[in-house]
Amino acid sequence: MDYVYGPGKNHLFVPGPVNIPEPVIRAMNRNNEDYRSPAVPALTKTLLEDVKKIFKTTSGTPFMIPTTGTGAWESALTNTLSPGDRTVSFQIGQFSLLWIDQQQRLKFNVDVVESDWGQGANLDILAEKLAADTAHTIKAICIVHNETATGVTNNLATVRKILDHYQHPALFLVDGVSSICALDFRMDEWGVDVALTGSQKALSLPTGMGIVCASPKALEASKTAKSVRVFFDWNDYLKFYKMGTYWPYTPSIQLLYGLRAALDLIFEEGLDNVIARHGRLAKATRLAVEAWGLKNCTQKEEWFSDTVTAVVVPSYIDSSEIVRRAWKRYNLSLGLGLNKVAGKVFRIGHLGNLNELQLLGCLAGVEMILKDVGYPVKLGSGVAAACAYLQNTIPLIPSRI
Amino acid sequence: MDYVYGPGKNHLFVPGPVNIPEPVIRAMNRNNEDYRSPAVPALTKTLLEDVKKIFKTTSGTPFMIPTTGTGAWESALTNTLSPGDRTVSFQIGQFSLLWIDQQQRLKFNVDVVESDWGQGANLDILAEKLAADTAHTIKAICIVHNETATGVTNNLATVRKILDHYQHPALFLVDGVSSICALDFRMDEWGVDVALTGSQKALSLPTGMGIVCASPKALEASKTAKSVRVFFDWNDYLKFYKMGTYWPYTPSIQLLYGLRAALDLIFEEGLDNVIARHGRLAKATRLAVEAWGLKNCTQKEEWFSDTVTAVVVPSYIDSSEIVRRAWKRYNLSLGLGLNKVAGKVFRIGHLGNLNELQLLGCLAGVEMILKDVGYPVKLGSGVAAACAYLQNTIPLIPSRI
Amino acid sequence: MDYVYGPGKNHLFVPGPVNIPEPVIRAMNRNNEDYRSPAVPALTKTLLEDVKKIFKTTSGTPFMIPTTGTGAWESALTNTLSPGDRTVSFQIGQFSLLWIDQQQRLKFNVDVVESDWGQGANLDILAEKLAADTAHTIKAICIVHNETATGVTNNLATVRKILDHYQHPALFLVDGVSSICALDFRMDEWGVDVALTGSQKALSLPTGMGIVCASPKALEASKTAKSVRVFFDWNDYLKFYKMGTYWPYTPSIQLLYGLRAALDLIFEEGLDNVIARHGRLAKATRLAVEAWGLKNCTQKEEWFSDTVTAVVVPSYIDSSEIVRRAWKRYNLSLGLGLNKVAGKVFRIGHLGNLNELQLLGCLAGVEMILKDVGYPVKLGSGVAAACAYLQNTIPLIPSRI
Amino acid sequence: MDYVYGPGKNHLFVPGPVNIPEPVIRAMNRNNEDYRSPAVPALTKTLLEDVKKIFKTTSGTPFMIPTTGTGAWESALTNTLSPGDRTVSFQIGQFSLLWIDQQQRLKFNVDVVESDWGQGANLDILAEKLAADTAHTIKAICIVHNETATGVTNNLATVRKILDHYQHPALFLVDGVSSICALDFRMDEWGVDVALTGSQKALSLPTGMGIVCASPKALEASKTAKSVRVFFDWNDYLKFYKMGTYWPYTPSIQLLYGLRAALDLIFEEGLDNVIARHGRLAKATRLAVEAWGLKNCTQKEEWFSDTVTAVVVPSYIDSSEIVRRAWKRYNLSLGLGLNKVAGKVFRIGHLGNLNELQLLGCLAGVEMILKDVGYPVKLGSGVAAACAYLQNTIPLIPSRI
Repeated sequence: MDYVYGPGKNHLFVPGPVNIPEPVIRAMNRNNEDYRSPAVPALTKTLLEDVKKIFKTTSGTPFMIPTTGTGAWESALTNTLSPGDRTVSFQIGQFSLLWIDQQQRLKFNVDVVESDWGQGANLDILAEKLAADTAHTIKAICIVHNETATGVTNNLATVRKILDHYQHPALFLVDGVSSICALDFRMDEWGVDVALTGSQKALSLPTGMGIVCASPKALEASKTAKSVRVFFDWNDYLKFYKMGTYWPYTPSIQLLYGLRAALDLIFEEGLDNVIARHGRLAKATRLAVEAWGLKNCTQKEEWFSDTVTAVVVPSYIDSSEIVRRAWKRYNLSLGLGLNKVAGKVFRIGHLGNLNELQLLGCLAGVEMILKDVGYPVKLGSGVAAACAYLQNTIPLIPSRI
Repeated sequence: MDYVYGPGKNHLFVPGPVNIPEPVIRAMNRNNEDYRSPAVPALTKTLLEDVKKIFKTTSGTPFMIPTTGTGAWESALTNTLSPGDRTVSFQIGQFSLLWIDQQQRLKFNVDVVESDWGQGANLDILAEKLAADTAHTIKAICIVHNETATGVTNNLATVRKILDHYQHPALFLVDGVSSICALDFRMDEWGVDVALTGSQKALSLPTGMGIVCASPKALEASKTAKSVRVFFDWNDYLKFYKMGTYWPYTPSIQLLYGLRAALDLIFEEGLDNVIARHGRLAKATRLAVEAWGLKNCTQKEEWFSDTVTAVVVPSYIDSSEIVRRAWKRYNLSLGLGLNKVAGKVFRIGHLGNLNELQLLGCLAGVEMILKDVGYPVKLGSGVAAACAYLQNTIPLIPSRI
Repeated sequence: MDYVYGPGKNHLFVPGPVNIPEPVIRAMNRNNEDYRSPAVPALTKTLLEDVKKIFKTTSGTPFMIPTTGTGAWESALTNTLSPGDRTVSFQIGQFSLLWIDQQQRLKFNVDVVESDWGQGANLDILAEKLAADTAHTIKAICIVHNETATGVTNNLATVRKILDHYQHPALFLVDGVSSICALDFRMDEWGVDVALTGSQKALSLPTGMGIVCASPKALEASKTAKSVRVFFDWNDYLKFYKMGTYWPYTPSIQLLYGLRAALDLIFEEGLDNVIARHGRLAKATRLAVEAWGLKNCTQKEEWFSDTVTAVVVPSYIDSSEIVRRAWKRYNLSLGLGLNKVAGKVFRIGHLGNLNELQLLGCLAGVEMILKDVGYPVKLGSGVAAACAYLQNTIPLIPSRI
Repeated sequence: MDYVYGPGKNHLFVPGPVNIPEPVIRAMNRNNEDYRSPAVPALTKTLLEDVKKIFKTTSGTPFMIPTTGTGAWESALTNTLSPGDRTVSFQIGQFSLLWIDQQQRLKFNVDVVESDWGQGANLDILAEKLAADTAHTIKAICIVHNETATGVTNNLATVRKILDHYQHPALFLVDGVSSICALDFRMDEWGVDVALTGSQKALSLPTGMGIVCASPKALEASKTAKSVRVFFDWNDYLKFYKMGTYWPYTPSIQLLYGLRAALDLIFEEGLDNVIARHGRLAKATRLAVEAWGLKNCTQKEEWFSDTVTAVVVPSYIDSSEIVRRAWKRYNLSLGLGLNKVAGKVFRIGHLGNLNELQLLGCLAGVEMILKDVGYPVKLGSGVAAACAYLQNTIPLIPSRI
């Protein structure tokens, strides 16, 4: 059943799905249950309450939908918008591109703001568009917080500032798939109207749950949104929330218990500590990249992502060969370059339940692979740079002090 | 984490989610993996090939979608039909009702054929409608193979015969959620165009995978169907099938390995033996119900379901109290009566990975509960009737002969 | 890997190893750990404290030895006795016989008191021997609390009374393998000097931990006992207890976490409720046996065991055939008759984490098997008798009220 | 239940218990079974056959005892020797010391050959003793293949040569606890009479199975050996082997299935490849130690162990502080220095199911810790040295080529 067994642990450094912590694997190791018994609603209730914390919202309403990130996108859009509605959407990499494609196929009038891949969303253009839109034809701003394909983090606080500056009523829809639970994300403070993530990202669960959180304004919008939807309809959830049975259709019992365990671990570590750990691992990765003499696909420091680093390889190297070799020789899973950056970058995902020594093993592996493919890296250089930083910054594990 | 612990095993007799066999739980007990490595496509390829066997199709194309049965419905409809299209749909219980509701919300022109709950689909009316529809305005016949709310199985072979008789080109869409892998189902022989099931039913997996299988005619229809769809769009799957990477978005690695194990078990037992076992358990259940002096909600033998039995209680008893008591006192999970039959029936699900002694434990429990709630049952009577039948029919376990 | 797969759950009704509850399986689903880190001693400390509760002792010292019941016996004997020491030991079935064999091979002078299999230990003879032993040549009374081969429970309170009556200083060594955590057992109150059990019995864990609990008097005896021992030597444990590292050699991390979970479940249910549940299941079993017209191997009610029932079959039936058929046709595991009662009895183990409906499934199975082998049982009769009793006595599950 | 949770994986580099591969954890994730059903003997039979391969023996008889390494020692000794028998035994570290202690407590006449800790067994003295022993008073040579406390591997081929040279009939008893399945071990070729290992070492299972393998000569010796033994008595096993039921007492079902999975993985990789991988990891570790400017506790290259490296720290550093800090700050588990080398060495275990990137993560961690405790290490130096070697030597993973 394991088609491609290799000795030792697989080093999983794609930017999702990520490593599942043992306590979460344990929590999901269970038989099915009747989801109409009193037990599952009781569990669901605590989850709906606690999951709001990872969005930093008190006023939002979360939906834990048995779907993926793509489904979560669809849920966010179809519940708040009507066909023909104008959205402003930023194409800065493969995932924002796919979201835009979805918006177009869902028949919205998508006003695409394109940037070079490696750059963040061009918020100056956003400002221009909002300034010009005195008629408020723009119904929603759609933006990925973190573009997983290029390792670019957009500044959501600025988006809010611009919206506020122009007193523009557009909905603020955020793909937080590779950010929430890993990057600083503040739904309420930033006035985000819909935020969403997927279970297999920083929550460190299996794939299968798309979590969408809606502001009161988004809920209000859902009452008049004319997009056709059934499976993704928030209203069905809200009806069952009111009844206290919570589920319009069958949830995955295993994922519910897994989410409970995942949240417990996050709260035990402390969400802010989790975010700080992601910052630490990312900084260490970037220092290694620099030491190898390679370039980050992300073009400015302000956009550096703390969950994924896309590394640009020299033109004489095919980055896909790096990913292939990582898997074939080192039991290391790296992310491919996608679409416009295919062959040009490989990606190191450093999100989810991960610690420093795991990352250092990965970085050591990358060094050897770089050498394998003919890049004149100084072995140990990246690890040394990362260690120099980490040795000064890693905190004691609180439970072990 | 177990909010409502009770000693011993939970006796899970709701008609889904059902008991997961140990080898399947084991197979899913694993970390995430990179779904873009060569391993996952290799696994997926075998699954797509083997999953066709449970539909009894060689010409169908399966889609294993990270969703539930409700999502599988939506996938079947939106990929084959356009808004305004006329469907003929049979309302015979809560699940067929919900599917009709979905069809209406997806903007189809639904021609509802209603029957009393407890009866099968009225195929005479179908014949009339097809006879009258010389203009071929009917684009699809939508029918549940097995109505989980009432324990009614429709005769799909007859549906095909009627369609053929009138040489009507309507698509034949089948909800096989509580039938496929448990009841005799023959996609190719019956000319079914789309059939679908959910992982948590007779496949005995966790919830989270909706499996939809499309005939060549259905695939053809999908090319012109105008219903808006993205997450559920077959075309995205087909694109990735062609590339050999198979997944337009992230699948649940755990469910893929689980499905592999589930299919292995089904093939080891033999699909026809699995179906025979369901027949045996169902017959035993019906004999017990009879012995208790109670009525089956299903009004004629030709509609008796081999996956779920809805038992009608006397009017002085609230069937919900039976379900509540089962759980509170006996660690037994039974199905509630839904909607029109709420309070009037309770349901015994006897599908999935289940054997005779498990069922007999359940039946013994039901007898005690009936007594608890004031019904004058003769204790042991149902079990005796079931045993008399089973003792004559249970085969030896092939691997142990 | 599953050599003999059969559909549905295996019905495990041997008197050990017994069913492991899901929360315990989950707790053991883990990687190894460094047992010299601070975590494992911290865990061990809570276990040593809590495990005393299942012996109902406050003054005893427990040893959790990586071994089986046989090893636990050896630990009890070699730590307290010297070669040539006289023991009084009761042979009433296969397990007491094996313990006596061990005592003899360990070079003790074993004074065997034999009873018919199906009878309890002859305590009159014990009284005689103690009365006669004014020189105190008897160093230990060795007795199984519950003889697993015949389903006979000895009266330990009476043993203590007799010892006290004659003011005899002999050590009181008890095999509680199939009793502790299931039957009423009171180490301190009954002045038991060494009591022992195995993890795979009423604790409902995998095999691999023999738990031995020593009174202060037994510990004192261990200082002068001359039996050669190393692996089983309590003194090595005591040394490490003092250091706070607890383990003279490597424990099974998985079993430690499993024991933690098992004890948590037992304490959540309440040890006295656990014992009452065993009483209930046993009584139901005996009522079924009676209804079938069969005889209990145990000859008097005072010896009836609440953890295992040995059922005598008519002379024209080979009980082994019953056990074989249970496994081959019904996925039911029953206990064989052993040694003197081979072919004559089969055994139903009803201990550990088990509930009423599980037992009723087993009893229904036994009825069918009896019919299979030609015994004229009235199908349903045993289940009816059991249900009549259980329906009156099963309490609500406290966590679900 | 996790007393000391830290984010990410625990890096387990103690020389046992070691990391359990996921497929083995999965295989053990199961309920108990009746070990007297036909399934368990069938499984046991394949295990007994296959386990001989890891000893490289065809003539040996293996015993899979529910115990630890300490128990396996006791089994080896008590089955082959009688009290008063003279053994020659080599004290070269904590584990050989403990074995000698056991031999003395079992009343053998132990002729101890002591070496400085960090040296191998002094085989010149062995030669002298054998030469002098024309009366053949020496009944057994007892030697650890690999001393886990100091990282010293003894040359067993030479032991055999010396025995042969003097045509001495002494039994050749080998502790292979931290060698078998990791180092080159050849029971038949080297004429080893008893070899033993523990499940939690290179087999990468949980603790709880001591595997002892006896040559025909050892079996012969067991017929006359007078050491008292019951639990550890081979004869009880042999009796049950003959009957085909295999188990004189209850085995751990979970460990049996786990062993099946573990052997499958080892054979899939190829035992010689497993051994080569251990050689590679060990060499990389030693190169790192050298690069750090630290000394290996092992005094000569011929004794270098491929399963554990004991690193000597400068006198101004307490090696325990390194181990403590590894755990508290880096979630890294290293081995303490024991007894004579306490505070002076720390140990890196590199055995079992482990790959290169895991080791490199560990080595990077050790570098940071060395810096933490004030040793002037050049960060990255050890990793660089290890990588330089590994990048040239790591083979492709066969299943992924």
